[in-house]
Amino acid sequence: MQNFEFWNPVKIVFGRGTIPTVGKHVKEHGRKALLVYGQGSIKRNGVYDQVVGSLNEAGVKVVEFPGVQPNPVLSHVRKGVKLGQDEKVDVVLAVGGGSVIDESKALAGSIATGSDVWDVFQGTAAYDAALPLVDVLTVPAAGSEMNNGLVITNEEARIKDGGCFGPHLYPKVSICDPTVMDTVPRQYMLYAAADVLSHLLEAYLNHEDPNTAVQDRYVEGLCRNVRESLEAILARPDDYDAKATFMWAATLAWNQLALAGIGPFQMPCHMLEHTVSSLYPRVAHGAGLSVLQPAWMAWKTQREPRRVARFAREVMGVREADDAQAARRGVQLLCDWLAGFGAPLRLSELGIDAAGVDALVAHAAKQAVWWELNAVYTPEAIREIFASCE
Amino acid sequence: MQNFEFWNPVKIVFGRGTIPTVGKHVKEHGRKALLVYGQGSIKRNGVYDQVVGSLNEAGVKVVEFPGVQPNPVLSHVRKGVKLGQDEKVDVVLAVGGGSVIDESKALAGSIATGSDVWDVFQGTAAYDAALPLVDVLTVPAAGSEMNNGLVITNEEARIKDGGCFGPHLYPKVSICDPTVMDTVPRQYMLYAAADVLSHLLEAYLNHEDPNTAVQDRYVEGLCRNVRESLEAILARPDDYDAKATFMWAATLAWNQLALAGIGPFQMPCHMLEHTVSSLYPRVAHGAGLSVLQPAWMAWKTQREPRRVARFAREVMGVREADDAQAARRGVQLLCDWLAGFGAPLRLSELGIDAAGVDALVAHAAKQAVWWELNAVYTPEAIREIFASCE
Repeated sequence: MQNFEFWNPVKIVFGRGTIPTVGKHVKEHGRKALLVYGQGSIKRNGVYDQVVGSLNEAGVKVVEFPGVQPNPVLSHVRKGVKLGQDEKVDVVLAVGGGSVIDESKALAGSIATGSDVWDVFQGTAAYDAALPLVDVLTVPAAGSEMNNGLVITNEEARIKDGGCFGPHLYPKVSICDPTVMDTVPRQYMLYAAADVLSHLLEAYLNHEDPNTAVQDRYVEGLCRNVRESLEAILARPDDYDAKATFMWAATLAWNQLALAGIGPFQMPCHMLEHTVSSLYPRVAHGAGLSVLQPAWMAWKTQREPRRVARFAREVMGVREADDAQAARRGVQLLCDWLAGFGAPLRLSELGIDAAGVDALVAHAAKQAVWWELNAVYTPEAIREIFASCE
Repeated sequence: MQNFEFWNPVKIVFGRGTIPTVGKHVKEHGRKALLVYGQGSIKRNGVYDQVVGSLNEAGVKVVEFPGVQPNPVLSHVRKGVKLGQDEKVDVVLAVGGGSVIDESKALAGSIATGSDVWDVFQGTAAYDAALPLVDVLTVPAAGSEMNNGLVITNEEARIKDGGCFGPHLYPKVSICDPTVMDTVPRQYMLYAAADVLSHLLEAYLNHEDPNTAVQDRYVEGLCRNVRESLEAILARPDDYDAKATFMWAATLAWNQLALAGIGPFQMPCHMLEHTVSSLYPRVAHGAGLSVLQPAWMAWKTQREPRRVARFAREVMGVREADDAQAARRGVQLLCDWLAGFGAPLRLSELGIDAAGVDALVAHAAKQAVWWELNAVYTPEAIREIFASCE
């Protein structure tokens, strides 16, 4: 195990009926909230009314800032920063999924410090403070509710970038009510599952230290939770406990506990997916990962099957003793499982035809340099992976 | 899954060579530290010199308060509170295992508030503040380094009591260097393992909600980590990674993550062990649990084997389909495993003869009322359990 520091000060408020507590929690941190949300689904599913009702009851003033896009964009962040500064809000309340919470972290940091988020990404500015951030999670997938990371797309430069930028970006309180999943479309549940599995598997499959037994078993347990709970949710949409299992597993998958002690790790599938959703902004992050994670695992199996074989045995129940055979069988079972629900496994299913692959390869090759993964992820290797899932 | 709030703000600094960072961490929270430790083993193993050297280098003033006993006692807490208040310390530094950290929580709370810890236990006073607490862990077992709980023995009343008393008692920073285990005697490693397994298993085996898949897999993974790492440590005392696995698993076992969402739970083995170490203060907490946890599991198997059977299958690798058979086999394997290392399985091995059982039963029956477990743990049931491991 490698040396590490672990610190995660987020308070999770979890369970059915917890959304009406949001006013109380926001009021502990401020009097005037920037209410950040997306394209308006929270107005259709009743979450908006619960949130605004609770804020009113608590006497918190509200400045609304809707319109966050899936794969949130820089220009919208900058608008929100101006609004928040003009209105002198003192707390940010995100109501949404990972995109809304990610953008809200940038807003909390930039409103407090005046630093532009893209400058922070470039390292020419820093978030040495942030407004307090509270969130109400509406789609469990990204894990943003229990970490200090964020991803923003610079739509002019067509670059999706991000990272973790200091101790101030952790939400103070994240309210996680599994009943919000009642209105998440089936297809988005599949994307959510692909995202969570990818969060769990990327570091698990891509670190060098062989002595990570605690982290390995933690990840394997959560993978099995995702697998079993997704099956239950799709079979019985009313199953509250399956939704609770999925939601809590999604949060724990990306709260940095799985990373503590494993040392340096890589996230090649996320790198490749950032290319896909930079060039095809309408492709959901989870949809891209549904295609790329298994494709990458098949590619990896041909080179170094050891860790994929462990996944196959511990998560997919494969019994083959030979690593290469076990890994191949595990990837096949994963593909069958995803395809059985109708999750995409091919770029063509995302609306990307063979002619698009050249542009993906060129973009991803640049990303690989930026992510310092280009020693392994050469243009040839990247082409191989994209071509395998055309 | 039951509704829950989870919040754990402890910063863990983990790995070899981390002890000399203690001065820096303490200095972030105060200028004059009450240095709390036990019977002096830290002077023999070099930890004391590293700690004091680091504090001196950081310019932190030190007031020493040694002499914490295993099963820390109320009279010693009261002495430390007076010393800390007289000396106007502004931070508490615990260097030791669970006993030292537990007592230091009481010191941090009582020095800051003036409330006596026993009054806090009785509910007639509260810790609405505490001095900041930093610790250097020297024996991984109790998990006190990543929670806000503490247990103190009132030696006059012969009662061991405790609980979690508010958000102020979490350590700010816990420094966990697995190399401290180099000097932990073999027998104490066994007691540590028994303590950690009991922390994991009590709530796992004693809650009602059947929908706790996330928490179950988390616990099962950690149990397997403890099992495998203890075997490795005893076979190869130089195996750093095994010690790191054990130490991190011990911390994660009792940081409240396994409890979040399971709803009400009971800890009958800890209740019975508190009786043992109240009446026999020289019996190590882990030694008592090494006897009582398997004995209780055998007793439980006769009544309701379902959860013990799950443990048997998921942790001990038992394959029997019938719950009662699987549970019996699992308990047998656990006993064989403990006994194979020389861990105690009988009260007689703790120096408690058959004549002592009457007093244990009488004391435990009172404890059961206090713990509100007396509906199940009648004097007859308690006698059955103690008698089964005489």
